[in-house]
Amino acid sequence: MINRQITLAQRPVGNVDESTTSLVENPRPECGPGQALVKVGILSIDPTIRTWMNDAPGYLPPIGIGDVIRSSGAGVVVESNTSRYTPGDVVFGMTNWQEWVVAGEENKFSVLPTGMGLDLPTVMNVLGVTGITAFFGLMEVGQFKEGDVVVVSGAAGATGSVVGQIAKARGAKKVIGIAGGPEKCAEVVEKYGFDECLDYRESNLARRLHEACPKGIDVYFDNVGGEILDAALSNIAMHARIVLCGAISQYNAMEKPQGLANTTMLIMRRGRMEGFIVLDFADRFAEAQMELAGMVLNGTLAHQEHLVRGLEHAPDALNLLFTGGNHGKTLVVVDESVQLA
Amino acid sequence: MINRQITLAQRPVGNVDESTTSLVENPRPECGPGQALVKVGILSIDPTIRTWMNDAPGYLPPIGIGDVIRSSGAGVVVESNTSRYTPGDVVFGMTNWQEWVVAGEENKFSVLPTGMGLDLPTVMNVLGVTGITAFFGLMEVGQFKEGDVVVVSGAAGATGSVVGQIAKARGAKKVIGIAGGPEKCAEVVEKYGFDECLDYRESNLARRLHEACPKGIDVYFDNVGGEILDAALSNIAMHARIVLCGAISQYNAMEKPQGLANTTMLIMRRGRMEGFIVLDFADRFAEAQMELAGMVLNGTLAHQEHLVRGLEHAPDALNLLFTGGNHGKTLVVVDESVQLA
Repeated sequence: MINRQITLAQRPVGNVDESTTSLVENPRPECGPGQALVKVGILSIDPTIRTWMNDAPGYLPPIGIGDVIRSSGAGVVVESNTSRYTPGDVVFGMTNWQEWVVAGEENKFSVLPTGMGLDLPTVMNVLGVTGITAFFGLMEVGQFKEGDVVVVSGAAGATGSVVGQIAKARGAKKVIGIAGGPEKCAEVVEKYGFDECLDYRESNLARRLHEACPKGIDVYFDNVGGEILDAALSNIAMHARIVLCGAISQYNAMEKPQGLANTTMLIMRRGRMEGFIVLDFADRFAEAQMELAGMVLNGTLAHQEHLVRGLEHAPDALNLLFTGGNHGKTLVVVDESVQLA
Repeated sequence: MINRQITLAQRPVGNVDESTTSLVENPRPECGPGQALVKVGILSIDPTIRTWMNDAPGYLPPIGIGDVIRSSGAGVVVESNTSRYTPGDVVFGMTNWQEWVVAGEENKFSVLPTGMGLDLPTVMNVLGVTGITAFFGLMEVGQFKEGDVVVVSGAAGATGSVVGQIAKARGAKKVIGIAGGPEKCAEVVEKYGFDECLDYRESNLARRLHEACPKGIDVYFDNVGGEILDAALSNIAMHARIVLCGAISQYNAMEKPQGLANTTMLIMRRGRMEGFIVLDFADRFAEAQMELAGMVLNGTLAHQEHLVRGLEHAPDALNLLFTGGNHGKTLVVVDESVQLA
């Protein structure tokens, strides 16, 4: 009756490595009054986890040294002392990187819907935080409207690929992706249906963006920050909206980045640059999920999950997000037996 | 019957100097059908003029080599072939840096109101573009609301000083200025009634901002850009609004600036950074002018004009904005006889 857990051993500099985390064994937690015991099945691997490992101000406090790595995930209820959860329910919430977790007032989980014909990895991807982020980032923060020219960085990624597909479905004039390498760029166009995809590893991204959208960018959805964001800034149209969703290029940067040089374009073009965290829209998640589930079920939303098997490989899975070694939404399978009916 | 004009001789690198402009003499323009001839009395010297001298994309095209320097100003109508203007009217518009200008369909002027007991320099300052910029920047772009903590850079300047006073009048919790040197900082507190003023020339502005507003900045009104903007970004409160009004530190920078390193704070704190140009609010100018005139007339809006006499000194007057040698709104008096009744 043990609970394998991955804890933060020391704060990483750059990429996560063997010295960053420890695999520890502790007794399986008890299920107290008002609580349920959840067997963890799958973990959502998100870039934000890397930011929580730094001792820096964020939207949540840093993970403490010795604490289990914070993460969302899903599992199955095996024991329950509350009417809120029934044994057999598949639930989503903050599982953290471990095999067992207690759900209760202190750590609430939501029960995932069954009977939609969607498997757990798909739900974790498109109906999870990743897809919801794409939806509210584009529609609410980006104030997307029909006829907009939309540019998305991290376009082959779980969030970026959904952003572009929603924009296409809702009548964007043109949707341009930015991704790393010819293989990912091809995927963005062929699999996700973007009009075009620019490889940021090639030179002079700013000029190529200008060629791709000579009248400027109306909505730029940024997942990466840094030089790519700066290149987009230099190409914004009047009244452009820049959605800051993430800054993956900065999260494990070893040195102080060069910084953005083109923010005065926000004055020249009356642009708006706004950051958000999907949790801000927590009371409206169902709205996005309805839309996204509809698109998946009618086949207009292509998606892809990158499954890594074994809790012990979660740190490597996190690194994939920064090396670009993943294809689609990265998930760690902790227990294969946990499935959505 | 000559018209002295100042033209752009070559594009400046850094500050404007003797080689940048030429003082030329041309025949006084003729007053054609539908036009009025205006004798220029006063010029508004604004940082944006410096941006128009660069061969760079902006919200208006660059000034051409050999063209008269673009500038707003006021003058008196001396001859009119249109019912729109009556000789004796004092009018405001794009006078450019010269002694005579033709008003007409191609270059419209507005007739300034008389009988309010406000002199021409005051009207050019508070009721002019400078004050209107402060009003809409704070209220519309900054979405100021009672109880906000407001920080203003360029606080001793024409726009910044008005921003802080409007915020105080409308119930800001705290208004903090940023200015250069102890003399200006004292002026910001004593003359303009800010709660506090930080000298950016002293070290560690970011830490001092944190001490001044430990719960963070709700509205940051930026006139300067660069490192000061970056220091403010590192101290924003949740849902902060950053108003990009100008970036005077960048306009005549000799080298590529370091760039902003703290924009990921916009994600962490769900902040919004938005640029604007006052011309975007052209159809609502009267709204701001009513408010500002009321404040001047009831004595709640302190203001100060820095008068430089002589058209030929306009280039030096422009430099004052960048060296900090001015106190209040910088105006060049071209003809002392032009006055508001």
